[in-house]
Amino acid sequence: MITKIALDVPLAEGTEPFRSVDPTQNHVNTMDLGITRGDGIFEGLGVNHGTVQSLEPHLARLVRSAKMMDLPELDIDVIRDALVYAAKVHPPAPLLMQKLVITRGIEGGDTLTAFVQTWEGGNSPTEVSQGIRLVALDRGFRHDVAETSPWLLQGAKTLSYAVNKSVLREAARRGADDVLFVSSDGYALEGPSASLIARFGDTFLTPRTDQGILAGTTQHATFELLKEKGFTVGEELITMDKLATADNLWYVSAGRFFNPISHLDDRELVIDWEFTTPIHEMLLARTR
Amino acid sequence: MITKIALDVPLAEGTEPFRSVDPTQNHVNTMDLGITRGDGIFEGLGVNHGTVQSLEPHLARLVRSAKMMDLPELDIDVIRDALVYAAKVHPPAPLLMQKLVITRGIEGGDTLTAFVQTWEGGNSPTEVSQGIRLVALDRGFRHDVAETSPWLLQGAKTLSYAVNKSVLREAARRGADDVLFVSSDGYALEGPSASLIARFGDTFLTPRTDQGILAGTTQHATFELLKEKGFTVGEELITMDKLATADNLWYVSAGRFFNPISHLDDRELVIDWEFTTPIHEMLLARTR
Repeated sequence: MITKIALDVPLAEGTEPFRSVDPTQNHVNTMDLGITRGDGIFEGLGVNHGTVQSLEPHLARLVRSAKMMDLPELDIDVIRDALVYAAKVHPPAPLLMQKLVITRGIEGGDTLTAFVQTWEGGNSPTEVSQGIRLVALDRGFRHDVAETSPWLLQGAKTLSYAVNKSVLREAARRGADDVLFVSSDGYALEGPSASLIARFGDTFLTPRTDQGILAGTTQHATFELLKEKGFTVGEELITMDKLATADNLWYVSAGRFFNPISHLDDRELVIDWEFTTPIHEMLLARTR
Repeated sequence: MITKIALDVPLAEGTEPFRSVDPTQNHVNTMDLGITRGDGIFEGLGVNHGTVQSLEPHLARLVRSAKMMDLPELDIDVIRDALVYAAKVHPPAPLLMQKLVITRGIEGGDTLTAFVQTWEGGNSPTEVSQGIRLVALDRGFRHDVAETSPWLLQGAKTLSYAVNKSVLREAARRGADDVLFVSSDGYALEGPSASLIARFGDTFLTPRTDQGILAGTTQHATFELLKEKGFTVGEELITMDKLATADNLWYVSAGRFFNPISHLDDRELVIDWEFTTPIHEMLLARTR
């Protein structure tokens, strides 16, 4: 059983900005639009020895999600303080995970609901060493749907993640660990909770985020590392045909860091451990 | 402010099946997959002078949603009892509305979370008499996506309704009241909380539900009434071009019943009040 510390962060003026609460007690009303409509946004963050990693990129993405959802302007300073506070008051561990949830609040009200959960977790090197078995599944949308139909909220990190959970059950039925979403017109997109990185010689590519996919905070940090090492990095439209010619593939995310992919559907992929392990460890050890 | 009565319905064995709780108190845990992932299902029901309308069709649809979501088998007898009990203990009113919510429960646990809310509501004849201004918005999926990609959960009534809320904000920006979802290949589908009925002479059509849209319980009741009156009814694939040739259009739902549509995008539609009003009142007065 995971131990979590919940923080209730009332964003209304004149109240204390947040407080630590007992996570085994109930803090959400049944009329909260978060539970009745999945009407809210979230971020998942990693904490390395007390430092919340990629904190500012996560907050920037949160603001983008809030804007796409027409949520009121967020008090980012309070949210930042809550994340840092929650990381500090948790019993120390090499790696903590955090989830920040913000909902539109109780139906008919004008106050957002917000909380932070913190728990010990993340991938151990042993888990990473097995490689991920991926299946490609249709996301149903064209790659340009975020531009043509912004009301579909593609690219916002919303609480409406039933499909992101459903595809994992489909993957398990097919004997796989995780899913690569593919647009209805054949472009590789992202995982339900990870970004894709593909290596082609000395160039590393990730799918372009204007396809309604999330700007990966860990993907960004990985590209910074790769640039420092002299590699070329870029965002592109990547067809599944092109992806099949990649030397190696990885999934990156806060908490799982740099995970090699061992299979894409029935095809076995080469895992370059000598390259993967140091990048994984550098991402794990980030202090910002 | 709407008064709601929440019912907590623990579905675990050996506990009392449900109990009435104070809706102003919090009954949902922050680790509930309903709030963190929109991972659950719901039904909205109307109650006419104490009788829950279309109760069995709602329960049948709930079971279909649960199956599409790979939820454990539901104890439908307990759920039925809870809905009827909640309708009974609410202060009487000509029309009550109910929402039944079932989530996958707390992450890592094996118990579903379930509750029923009951409140006084529904449409007054005055509201109906204005007609609905609709805008057509792309749903992003092909009409056959429920068959090709069942993991997208199209046709399940899930708690992941952020898009169903987002499109209403887009409609408001365009000066409209509600939305008609259109498939990416041009078929009329449904509203975010209503089914579409179109009249062509003596034939009434609704879009085929194998397009990943909900089987409308009020649409079904309406078609039963229309058949009794000697009209032909049917489910079809309806292109937007065909829809433009309809004599009249309606939105039907539990709580709003038989609502004429006054505008589809910029086009004004004919409202046949003489026909609409008695059907609306018959649906309102249903005792089953």
